[in-house]
Amino acid sequence: MRYEEFTIEGRNAVIEAFRSKKPMDKVFMLDGCQDGPMMTIRREAKKHDVMIKYVSKDRLDQMSETGKHQGVIAYAAAYEYAQVEDILENARSKGEDPFVILLDNIEDPHNLGAIIRTANQAGAHGVIIPKNRAVGLTATVAKASAGALNYTPVAKVTNLSKTIEELKKEGLWFVCADMDGQVMYQLDLKGPIGLVIGNEGEGVSRLVKEKCDFTATIPMKGDIDSLNASVAAGILSYEIVRQRMGAGK
Amino acid sequence: MRYEEFTIEGRNAVIEAFRSKKPMDKVFMLDGCQDGPMMTIRREAKKHDVMIKYVSKDRLDQMSETGKHQGVIAYAAAYEYAQVEDILENARSKGEDPFVILLDNIEDPHNLGAIIRTANQAGAHGVIIPKNRAVGLTATVAKASAGALNYTPVAKVTNLSKTIEELKKEGLWFVCADMDGQVMYQLDLKGPIGLVIGNEGEGVSRLVKEKCDFTATIPMKGDIDSLNASVAAGILSYEIVRQRMGAGK
Repeated sequence: MRYEEFTIEGRNAVIEAFRSKKPMDKVFMLDGCQDGPMMTIRREAKKHDVMIKYVSKDRLDQMSETGKHQGVIAYAAAYEYAQVEDILENARSKGEDPFVILLDNIEDPHNLGAIIRTANQAGAHGVIIPKNRAVGLTATVAKASAGALNYTPVAKVTNLSKTIEELKKEGLWFVCADMDGQVMYQLDLKGPIGLVIGNEGEGVSRLVKEKCDFTATIPMKGDIDSLNASVAAGILSYEIVRQRMGAGK
Repeated sequence: MRYEEFTIEGRNAVIEAFRSKKPMDKVFMLDGCQDGPMMTIRREAKKHDVMIKYVSKDRLDQMSETGKHQGVIAYAAAYEYAQVEDILENARSKGEDPFVILLDNIEDPHNLGAIIRTANQAGAHGVIIPKNRAVGLTATVAKASAGALNYTPVAKVTNLSKTIEELKKEGLWFVCADMDGQVMYQLDLKGPIGLVIGNEGEGVSRLVKEKCDFTATIPMKGDIDSLNASVAAGILSYEIVRQRMGAGK
């Protein structure tokens, strides 16, 4: 998973990127390296709340395109992240009950892009992704979103469970997608809602699931395990749309 | 779009592949070349109803991995195609009304794979794709289908409009997905049904659309044009599932 257009290599280049306030996704740093410039990068990363991964020289060599990484490679985001508050404000300004889609570690940039696109069309007010592990707003995601990234705010949070708790105080109910819940048609998905979609392999993580009020299940008649994550997000989002419209017979 | 694992190059290799009844997707032949072996390949391709594309030497050189294409490169399918009749038989054997998904020139292998996966989970009895232009059952499609290709039959037809006409005689109704139809929740999508999904850029082609009985529209509240094709297929398929289950309030 590399976002070639947005890779920044070398100490000065990375420090410069932080200081120019370029939105960053992740910094990969040589493990054990603690000299001045590296400490500056660590400080900047912490200040801007950007995740640092400590890796071996081999890994950096492998990731490097220029061959001159000097112990540090950063991934910049193709788009600016929003704040969770922006998403709530988006709902308020439209006079609608908030409808937020939370993604628990989606790793495939095509899925993330397609989900942002769906969020836009389904009238969701924003998408929330976790800082850790998950893919960020890379160029591939932007492309797969077909322009939706220009309209639908995406916020990145440190801890999805904590964000759910905070949003509950704002009156949101949370429903997570999983196989062991109630068939989605039987749930009341109207009102202020957060829809939690798990990642491609493992589904919604236990800690996040425990914070949810309901578990919604898409009826599966097939011989295989699951649906593609962006397809599942689409089906659940539109069940919310249907119920909000009061449609169906 | 290359399916590297399944490329067959050179005259004897391609003739041999045909004679061993390997399922083939397409044959690219040097334009204007009419010697004995090339005529044999043409004959075999016609016999097995495989599309031939006549291209320039430059194009073949570009496509070739071995550099020894001898004027012919064939793409083999990763999976066997089914017949349309197999799909109807699949429905009959389950005692269900047929539910078939028809794809009008889906070009992205990830989308095709995800749609086959959705078809499996939504209880569709098969998928029909056109021979021309569209992507076939390549290794990438198989992977994106997450195993569904082992269960859900996929048939390839020469002319989608003609297939629709034939299936109408079997009692199927056809609904196509497009922006200018009725909101899907207001349509009656029960009974024997064919769902037609258009391609990523252009939607459903005019000739195919004219054969459909209804046009179903997914309500779009967004700022952009459309949904990802596999997401749209998922949302519409599950509206059919919902109506078949008699669910929703």
